[in-house]
Amino acid sequence: MRDVFIVGCAMTRFGRMEGGLLDLLEEAATGAMNDADIDEPVEGVFVANMGAGILNHLSGVGSALVDRLSLYPAAAETIENGPASGGSAVKVAYYAIASGLVDLALVVGGEKMRDVTGWEATDFVATLTHPQAEYIYGATLPAFAAMFARLYMEKYGVKHEHLAMVAIKNHENALLNPYAHVQQRITMEGILHRPEAIMNNPPVAEPLRLYDCCPVSDGAAAVVLASERIASKAKKPCVRIAGIGQATDTHAVHERKDPTELKAVRLASQKAFNMAGVKPEDVDVAELHDAFTILEIAESEEAGFFEKGKGHVALEKGETSLHGRMPINPSGGLKARGHPVGATGVAQVVELTWQLRHEAGPRQVDGAQIGFSCNFGGFGNNVLCFVLAGEK
Amino acid sequence: MRDVFIVGCAMTRFGRMEGGLLDLLEEAATGAMNDADIDEPVEGVFVANMGAGILNHLSGVGSALVDRLSLYPAAAETIENGPASGGSAVKVAYYAIASGLVDLALVVGGEKMRDVTGWEATDFVATLTHPQAEYIYGATLPAFAAMFARLYMEKYGVKHEHLAMVAIKNHENALLNPYAHVQQRITMEGILHRPEAIMNNPPVAEPLRLYDCCPVSDGAAAVVLASERIASKAKKPCVRIAGIGQATDTHAVHERKDPTELKAVRLASQKAFNMAGVKPEDVDVAELHDAFTILEIAESEEAGFFEKGKGHVALEKGETSLHGRMPINPSGGLKARGHPVGATGVAQVVELTWQLRHEAGPRQVDGAQIGFSCNFGGFGNNVLCFVLAGEK
Repeated sequence: MRDVFIVGCAMTRFGRMEGGLLDLLEEAATGAMNDADIDEPVEGVFVANMGAGILNHLSGVGSALVDRLSLYPAAAETIENGPASGGSAVKVAYYAIASGLVDLALVVGGEKMRDVTGWEATDFVATLTHPQAEYIYGATLPAFAAMFARLYMEKYGVKHEHLAMVAIKNHENALLNPYAHVQQRITMEGILHRPEAIMNNPPVAEPLRLYDCCPVSDGAAAVVLASERIASKAKKPCVRIAGIGQATDTHAVHERKDPTELKAVRLASQKAFNMAGVKPEDVDVAELHDAFTILEIAESEEAGFFEKGKGHVALEKGETSLHGRMPINPSGGLKARGHPVGATGVAQVVELTWQLRHEAGPRQVDGAQIGFSCNFGGFGNNVLCFVLAGEK
Repeated sequence: MRDVFIVGCAMTRFGRMEGGLLDLLEEAATGAMNDADIDEPVEGVFVANMGAGILNHLSGVGSALVDRLSLYPAAAETIENGPASGGSAVKVAYYAIASGLVDLALVVGGEKMRDVTGWEATDFVATLTHPQAEYIYGATLPAFAAMFARLYMEKYGVKHEHLAMVAIKNHENALLNPYAHVQQRITMEGILHRPEAIMNNPPVAEPLRLYDCCPVSDGAAAVVLASERIASKAKKPCVRIAGIGQATDTHAVHERKDPTELKAVRLASQKAFNMAGVKPEDVDVAELHDAFTILEIAESEEAGFFEKGKGHVALEKGETSLHGRMPINPSGGLKARGHPVGATGVAQVVELTWQLRHEAGPRQVDGAQIGFSCNFGGFGNNVLCFVLAGEK
């Protein structure tokens, strides 16, 4: 099996963006190809997108992007795996290069969500839930996250304040990230303790409030992957995809023996670490899928960074802060960088690439060599994890 | 690079089917796994589907299918490339196994289209056209095929009768295929020459009439792919994926220098033949993408079976008939087997597998050893071709 390297990356700003889905994909793709600056033909284009059909009345977005970028006759397809579409597209491009059939591939994840209003966006994401056992009862993703949070609070002593700490930390990191959707400092007083906090930060699905939930964002992110032959000619430092892990779990959440476990996160992490030959304690920087604040805490445990039930303690001690022992979501995470669903898994890899190339500016994790990402699909029924290694 | 083998296959009947999309996918998948009868875990599930979001209000169909089949923690994703989604999913599964990361993969293509009415189905497929240059002017896929047919008739002397011959041949073959949607004998008299033919076979988009267009079908098809280690243990004869070719072309059809050329078909075929180390004349049986009758004629030329402009002559001589020199669409093709878009590329591979295992019953092409398929996305802007080889 051949090694696979990230030789270029870029993203659009996330937020309420002008232009259509293809404009966003084009901007990220062009940025990544310019960053790679490699004079060989792209042979495969893998677009990660969840909602072009439902949200934008578009199909065949991969082929359309090849046309926008004049990359014919490059192969192209769209890869969909809900909010883990980005991770899946990176994995598929990895397969293509590792197989020996492709030497240079472009992965672009993107979503244009803000054309639809609030409840439509929530309904759109709910197309991932179990159609007979969940969707028809009105169970949405915020509802599942809320039930998960409530159980977690009871079982492990997590408090509202811990959830807020995730949001405060990630908003703080996002202030250092010019690509982040939400650029706003928040405080424990302002979102939880002052009398007017309930107005600033109203409940979405108890115990989760507004600032516990990621925003609905537009945006795109792209990486260029290459075989060793091409990577050896790259001008910038290359980042190696050292490990990939993926796991699925039951579709209906109530079918899981212990709903406070995220089994797919645990299995996918272990597979990625095994393939890379590293341990959680070797990781210098991680991007986790904090679509809801509670998920960052739970994933940090399932990935093996902290003991089960102790993630909130590490958070409270500042260990997951930018200059802590195990920095999580230096980008601001889904919570503050934003969550254009198809883009997210790719954006996590982009952030890690910048971190491992030591180009992350004011949010750089000192001397980062090993990065880890967790891209969470559905309510944890399809998860992808990556271990990335910078040049020594 | 490792060899990749087809060790099992199955499909549902195509047509107006009971049940939802997941029921169809489950039936085909279970059939293919039973056919393979291999006692090892499936590691990757690749679902080919174009319209679950638009037509069925579903996302994450790959993960949902893993749940239906209790295949956790197998990886899963959905691959979308319009009507070539099936070919793309087979290719991606090929990458996975060739890379060495996966030993056993399940590819399932399916579409549940008949929940929507006629114009909605046409509008759904038109989401593939160029949104600014084509879609907004009402240009649908039948319209493009009609313009293409008109040019082809003028340039190469193709007549209405030649188009009808494709339909008659493929309907005839479908009578021998219990999985085919359309099981109806048609005659030149009945659909073209008798005075009432214009009523039986009304124009859809001139010069194309009803019987020049594939039906709107529900259905699913599945193949199990394996590495040599697993294939060597298979009880049934294995079919090797000897060649894969893919090519894209301009999105807007009017941007092509010569709109009667299907450049992506030509390039994809050449790549597939080169990879397999065989020539068009070595092919014993082919499944081409006859969404419209004219496409079978044009593809048979671009793939290299006949000279450009001479496909209709070979057709007229009966060379493409079941017992002709170069049998095309023994299954009935999209025209009569049906065209559930996500299923089609997989169904072509299923038919070739049956042919190369010599299990095609009354529609068996004698002694078939080499098969070829062409799966055509958009109006020829993303095409996949496969060369399959039976056991000697």
